[in-house]
Amino acid sequence: MLATAVRLFQRDGYHATSWRRLVDEAGTPWGSAHHHFPGGKEQLGVEAVQLGADFAIDGVRRGFERHDSPEDAIRWWYRKAGRRLADADYRGGCPLATITLETVNGSPKLTAACREAFDRWQGVLTELLREHGYAAEAATELAVAIIHNFEGALLLSRVRRDTNPLELAAEQIAVLLAHQRHAAS
Amino acid sequence: MLATAVRLFQRDGYHATSWRRLVDEAGTPWGSAHHHFPGGKEQLGVEAVQLGADFAIDGVRRGFERHDSPEDAIRWWYRKAGRRLADADYRGGCPLATITLETVNGSPKLTAACREAFDRWQGVLTELLREHGYAAEAATELAVAIIHNFEGALLLSRVRRDTNPLELAAEQIAVLLAHQRHAAS
Repeated sequence: MLATAVRLFQRDGYHATSWRRLVDEAGTPWGSAHHHFPGGKEQLGVEAVQLGADFAIDGVRRGFERHDSPEDAIRWWYRKAGRRLADADYRGGCPLATITLETVNGSPKLTAACREAFDRWQGVLTELLREHGYAAEAATELAVAIIHNFEGALLLSRVRRDTNPLELAAEQIAVLLAHQRHAAS
Repeated sequence: MLATAVRLFQRDGYHATSWRRLVDEAGTPWGSAHHHFPGGKEQLGVEAVQLGADFAIDGVRRGFERHDSPEDAIRWWYRKAGRRLADADYRGGCPLATITLETVNGSPKLTAACREAFDRWQGVLTELLREHGYAAEAATELAVAIIHNFEGALLLSRVRRDTNPLELAAEQIAVLLAHQRHAAS
């Protein structure tokens, strides 16, 4: 049911997805759905955001495991996100952005979960960049830049049905990574 | 009624805002609301997106009118967006992002309007950068970078209730602008 929630919130958004549809699509018995998520849709939303952050972080980590330079790690990760988006006929996207924007004024619990998700994602990126020799402040700023860029590029790629914004975004990050490396040396 | 729609879609999103609430908050008589927007909430959404793009473009243009360098124009515009967000107790944001993500799978009319809005915004940015001497391809890529960055930074600033992501984002764009200038010379 949690996997269904991540998928539907990512694809159609939080408000457009009813509790009934979540239960039906997941094939969960009603009593069991209420038993596991006594807080209903909001609780499911919080857990979906946490799982969405796990997916995002996993993508980043795998990029850095496979590639020696942060530039290539980012290129790999963005390309992979673009391919996943295209394979889903541009119906996917970031598991965090839509629900964050939709609920930021309405649900303090969901907003806290979204904030924590972005903090955790930023923390992992910062740590990986530190391991590549960036100083603490530069690593943090680059991590924020990557999140900005990735979120904006996914939005544009999705509305344009074209992975080109993500490809451009990876090259923009490569410029920022090189700039900080030169600034430090 | 259109101004009310821009405000509510920006603040609470498209799905969380009912037609009834739009009509009530705008103080429009029911018959008149249906007369002016025979296509109902979807038509109002399309026109709100167009007006939202006008606001975004106006912000960019004013930045470039007031400042000699693109870097300072971008800093001014991002700072202004941050101040507006903080003044609205972080309940505002981009008039395009939320509605785009919410409706991209559900409404071809709204998605076409969102795509046109981003294209128009990108076109104006590209033209302004061309006037500052950037070659066509570089200007287009920088315009896309600015939209990515601005959208992602607004999202993070909003969920963190802090304008720091927007301030960082302006400096990231300054790096990209200088990099392209050096690459060309």
